[in-house]
Amino acid sequence: MENGHAKNRVAVIGSGNWGSVASRLIASNTAKLPSFHDEVRMWVFEEILPTGKKLSESINQANENCKYLPGIKLGANVIADPDLENAVKDANMLVFVTPHQFVEGICKKLVGKLRPGTEAISLIKGMEIAVEKFSEATIGYKKNKEVAAQWAKLFTTPYFLVSVVEDIEGVELCGTLKNVVAIAAGLVDGLDMGNNTKAAIMRIGLREMRAFSKLLSPTVRDNTFFESCGVADLITTCLGGRNRRVAEAFARNGGKRSFDELEAEMLHGQKLQGVSTAKEVYEVLTYRGWQELFPLLSTVHEICIGQLPPTSIVEYSEHTPNLSIISGSNAYY
Amino acid sequence: MENGHAKNRVAVIGSGNWGSVASRLIASNTAKLPSFHDEVRMWVFEEILPTGKKLSESINQANENCKYLPGIKLGANVIADPDLENAVKDANMLVFVTPHQFVEGICKKLVGKLRPGTEAISLIKGMEIAVEKFSEATIGYKKNKEVAAQWAKLFTTPYFLVSVVEDIEGVELCGTLKNVVAIAAGLVDGLDMGNNTKAAIMRIGLREMRAFSKLLSPTVRDNTFFESCGVADLITTCLGGRNRRVAEAFARNGGKRSFDELEAEMLHGQKLQGVSTAKEVYEVLTYRGWQELFPLLSTVHEICIGQLPPTSIVEYSEHTPNLSIISGSNAYY
Repeated sequence: MENGHAKNRVAVIGSGNWGSVASRLIASNTAKLPSFHDEVRMWVFEEILPTGKKLSESINQANENCKYLPGIKLGANVIADPDLENAVKDANMLVFVTPHQFVEGICKKLVGKLRPGTEAISLIKGMEIAVEKFSEATIGYKKNKEVAAQWAKLFTTPYFLVSVVEDIEGVELCGTLKNVVAIAAGLVDGLDMGNNTKAAIMRIGLREMRAFSKLLSPTVRDNTFFESCGVADLITTCLGGRNRRVAEAFARNGGKRSFDELEAEMLHGQKLQGVSTAKEVYEVLTYRGWQELFPLLSTVHEICIGQLPPTSIVEYSEHTPNLSIISGSNAYY
Repeated sequence: MENGHAKNRVAVIGSGNWGSVASRLIASNTAKLPSFHDEVRMWVFEEILPTGKKLSESINQANENCKYLPGIKLGANVIADPDLENAVKDANMLVFVTPHQFVEGICKKLVGKLRPGTEAISLIKGMEIAVEKFSEATIGYKKNKEVAAQWAKLFTTPYFLVSVVEDIEGVELCGTLKNVVAIAAGLVDGLDMGNNTKAAIMRIGLREMRAFSKLLSPTVRDNTFFESCGVADLITTCLGGRNRRVAEAFARNGGKRSFDELEAEMLHGQKLQGVSTAKEVYEVLTYRGWQELFPLLSTVHEICIGQLPPTSIVEYSEHTPNLSIISGSNAYY
């Protein structure tokens, strides 16, 4: 991160829908903020469009990503670049917005190619940027608050509030675990159990997210769950996300059609994170002997694999967990 | 509260819809729990039904409140009693489920009529008991955890989880303030701004609820806002409650029809708590000079009285509050 009068330079790694939205938002800020170079390099995973034109060229000619964000100008200071090394060589702030399975490969290619002191941020989990609608996000950081403040500056707009918390693990875990709770919420929707029940499930889900995160990583802070990455993203995901939607369909079919089948049919190639996350969480719970402590997280997985019926999502009375040890609350059930 | 082998006796003060639901739930537990007398006395504010029969007699004959909870048996151990003094004279646990404006008058009548050591609980704010659907609630208590545990026992069922927190003020303030946030959520709905925006507003609302409660009453605990009275009730109210519904209509009408007018038209005599609470909160904020710290709570009131347009609910960029002092988060806006 630059100090004094040297200016920060930003490169965005990724140019899908979110990558394009992020580049546009960032470019509108770098054009205004004196501590940033105007130009934002956006690395494009090159594709040949049906017209025969290259995606990167098309973006630079039209100042628009006609494939992933059609109809919206990115800003003249966004430059699409299909050459990863070239895209990052002058940058000292990298923004990752690729599908998560590509991150490792990209990072390996970047080894030795970056300027010293370069900082990176991941928008991969949990970040949803609504176009010109009031929204918010949380940035997790480690130790250096100055750096975090620069990142916050880069993303903040009048309609997009950004806050920072010194808790990278907490922010990441919120982004991952919320998808498991969204499956629970979707099951409740599919069972037509109403808002009281759904709210109760979301609340219990938030509590288990918090307790699980703190057991897994003792530096995780309670406060992170009050930030937008916690309660707000959980609400958004449980109201409208795709995990919720497919889980609703799963419950309406009485669990007779598998998540894989419904995913293929409903999401047209997009992937459901909640089901695989529930499986990973379940493995941790089983391995560490914590299953009893997390009835909601466990039950979601057992429902996903057909071991329990969808209705089990509201049948915790048998489980009698006692999370008070972890969360400080006193539950009588 | 009884110790040793003496059994607790419960009287429910109120027999409207919620009073009847609560009596039914409590009676199903007292019939099973050895530490309680089976009988639950339900005080009925006497009415003469169109048939000419007294409401209390009708309840006792049919074991059903044909006016406020028709079609549902209350349980043979619920006894309706129109005589307040008689209804409470043997009880040592009183459950208040009347409209809040009647509480003071009732309490005055009870002075000197109660057994020593009698405990009371209020279900007036924030408690919503869904019939046979999975739901939950929080009980706030002061000091005596044994008493709190008895109350939790009395209400808990397999589909109704009850937790207790040593924070009466926090639980009460959650129950009151959530209605103000629900108005903000309803405005967002009426402006068709989508789930991201709504979730952000709910999250900011929860943060202001917490910060306001802690400033007002320093004993209030953060954890209370993770309980069902906090985040879960907030979600329920912001998804389905009447404050939300009327505020949505208010925004759809561009603020041109007043809350009073819409309330009269839409709620058929039921009252909107959010508008009057927003006014009371605003008075406190103004008096103590805290207005700048609570842009959401302030803005709701200013929109309600027509001083700001409904769209102001998402225009905080000018306000730049810094709640980090109170909540420990770092907000860059």
